[in-house]
Amino acid sequence: MNTELNKHPHRRYNILTGEWILVSPHRTKRPWQGKTEKNNQEKRESYDSSCYLCPGNSRAGGETNPNYKGVHSFENDFPSLLPEGPTDDFKNGLLKAESETGICKVVCFSPDHSLTLPLMDVEDITKVVGLWKKEFKELGRKDNINYVQIFENKGAMMGCSNPHPHGQIWSQKSIPTEILKKSNHFKDYWEENKSSLLSDYLKQELELDERILAQNEHFVALIPYWAVWPYETMIVPKKHYQHIGQLNAEEEKAFAEIIKKLTIKYDNLFETSFPYSSGIHQAPTDGKDYPEWHFHMSFYPPLLRSATVKKFMVGYEMFAGPQRDITAEQAAQNLKELSEVHYLER
Amino acid sequence: MNTELNKHPHRRYNILTGEWILVSPHRTKRPWQGKTEKNNQEKRESYDSSCYLCPGNSRAGGETNPNYKGVHSFENDFPSLLPEGPTDDFKNGLLKAESETGICKVVCFSPDHSLTLPLMDVEDITKVVGLWKKEFKELGRKDNINYVQIFENKGAMMGCSNPHPHGQIWSQKSIPTEILKKSNHFKDYWEENKSSLLSDYLKQELELDERILAQNEHFVALIPYWAVWPYETMIVPKKHYQHIGQLNAEEEKAFAEIIKKLTIKYDNLFETSFPYSSGIHQAPTDGKDYPEWHFHMSFYPPLLRSATVKKFMVGYEMFAGPQRDITAEQAAQNLKELSEVHYLER
Ligand SMILES: O=P(O)(O)O[C@H]1O[C@H](CO)[C@@H](O)[C@H](O)[C@H]1O
Ligand SMILES: O=P(O)(O)O[C@H]1O[C@H](CO)[C@@H](O)[C@H](O)[C@H]1O
Repeated sequence: MNTELNKHPHRRYNILTGEWILVSPHRTKRPWQGKTEKNNQEKRESYDSSCYLCPGNSRAGGETNPNYKGVHSFENDFPSLLPEGPTDDFKNGLLKAESETGICKVVCFSPDHSLTLPLMDVEDITKVVGLWKKEFKELGRKDNINYVQIFENKGAMMGCSNPHPHGQIWSQKSIPTEILKKSNHFKDYWEENKSSLLSDYLKQELELDERILAQNEHFVALIPYWAVWPYETMIVPKKHYQHIGQLNAEEEKAFAEIIKKLTIKYDNLFETSFPYSSGIHQAPTDGKDYPEWHFHMSFYPPLLRSATVKKFMVGYEMFAGPQRDITAEQAAQNLKELSEVHYLER
Repeated sequence: MNTELNKHPHRRYNILTGEWILVSPHRTKRPWQGKTEKNNQEKRESYDSSCYLCPGNSRAGGETNPNYKGVHSFENDFPSLLPEGPTDDFKNGLLKAESETGICKVVCFSPDHSLTLPLMDVEDITKVVGLWKKEFKELGRKDNINYVQIFENKGAMMGCSNPHPHGQIWSQKSIPTEILKKSNHFKDYWEENKSSLLSDYLKQELELDERILAQNEHFVALIPYWAVWPYETMIVPKKHYQHIGQLNAEEEKAFAEIIKKLTIKYDNLFETSFPYSSGIHQAPTDGKDYPEWHFHMSFYPPLLRSATVKKFMVGYEMFAGPQRDITAEQAAQNLKELSEVHYLER
């Protein structure tokens, strides 16, 4: 697999979105004199009286959190989408808008303010997976909810305004751009090959074994060939499932286990609480059938060379398309070598 | 134009890319407890002996800068693209890559280390426009250069590692994703209406006069209806030009003048040196005809509410699609009210 191309600038094709990424393998030697980030290593207490997500505390909206023990979800106090709103669309010449409605929720992963996913027990992460599944089903069942986006912004660098372990769910009437792109590519492949694009991709990656980071009976964690972010990864179920609603109890636990393994590797890479946005892409919930879809969870972490130097997706990336300096294979190599025991727990 | 929709969450359609943006006008009241940025107000000297862009200094690659007086361009010492490389493409099952070649250049806007575009004279900005034009034509003429991306990353927040006033040009063999999207939409409109999409859009915006920030005989600066970044703007030539190579001397000066006006407003908004990435989108240089293309320059600035609080494009934005809190009209109102004299020069 180590063709000549991998040592020179080249473009790689993303089979899920149909877009290309520019890879510049020779460029890792570039000195960095630009902005560095804070390495936020501060130890947090298990309970913070000023945190609006800790059990028993009051929130910005005036409500009080229950004394929850495991996981806890509630409607976002500052939602970007509202369940009700005007229903007529707008068109005036070249200006075009549509009404949008939806429900935004916050999902607390643990009552313990000091934790993060890699530091939680598999049993407790399994509860998070269980709540994602429950929310996906409940929200997805509603009339005007045609897509459910589950995600986590981890770390101040990723715009997270509260370190309490939590994620979000934004669910809405329309199907977002990124999902439409992937739907199209899943569908084309399905119609042509009568098999799941990601099942076939997984098969190939497992054979090559160059970008695989971890696996268990039900899931594989890997760096996709077309990864954009320096340490971008993807968790894919081995079974061809359209959404997390299809997971059974054993699979939920296996999902939790691989999330823990992967996020421990992340933290160990630069011995820091590794920032990222993660998200689950799955079939729309508009009642139609999506046999072609294969759900997966992706991690987009910004760090490039250390806990304080990140990759900036600016300029060329904004105007032309994404660019990366280290190859997916180099990144996989770096992550593979790392211990599966968290550096704080050694 | 102030329909009911503008007060509620809605989606707006980008006529150039065919993508939608989620607008949440009610959400501006959200408190911000997250990361804040440094307000970099430090005064710089006109010459910095450690700057690799100042005249007469030596660069990372070992070369020495000439004692340039106006503008100066040279090949990037750490280019992400190289002129030569393997030429065969790669395909193995679902893995697909292509070789990519190109030329990366750095464009110094001024010998004066302390300046930025809004603080430069129109005459000196005109020299920058002139150099962009020269580079566009020279690079574009080369055999394997089919697209020329001119851009500037301004400010440490935008990954700029040197405050010396400068921009970059990455030119390459393949036509990047963002350009392909716009090409398609320009073309569809051209074939249907036999007129330029942006000419017609400009006509409509000038009539409505709600999002126009500045104009002169040859250019208009406005906030596009579908703007993504809080204070995203666009400069559009009134004439239907495919690329900057078509500008005459008078138009070059008018372009410089409107860049100065707009960037002064930016600096005045939060009384800071306003960070942004800017870029010029124009017709490919592959030798084909692109009568449908209408060149334009866009500014993508991250700041949201002050010199230290930016909008994070993370989580939902990465996995679903862009979202913004203030409407394009509110942003236009805020920018319109501002003086055209720079706050440091009052
Ligand atoms: O080339 P520079 O200025 O060192 O680097 C900057 O601009 C490039 C092009 O937009 C980006 O790829 C880099 O992430 C950014 O830090
Ligand atoms: O909702 P939060 O956590 O306050 O906000 C964060 O996540 C949102 C969804 O990814 C983004 O739109 C915001 O820019 C980010 O700061």
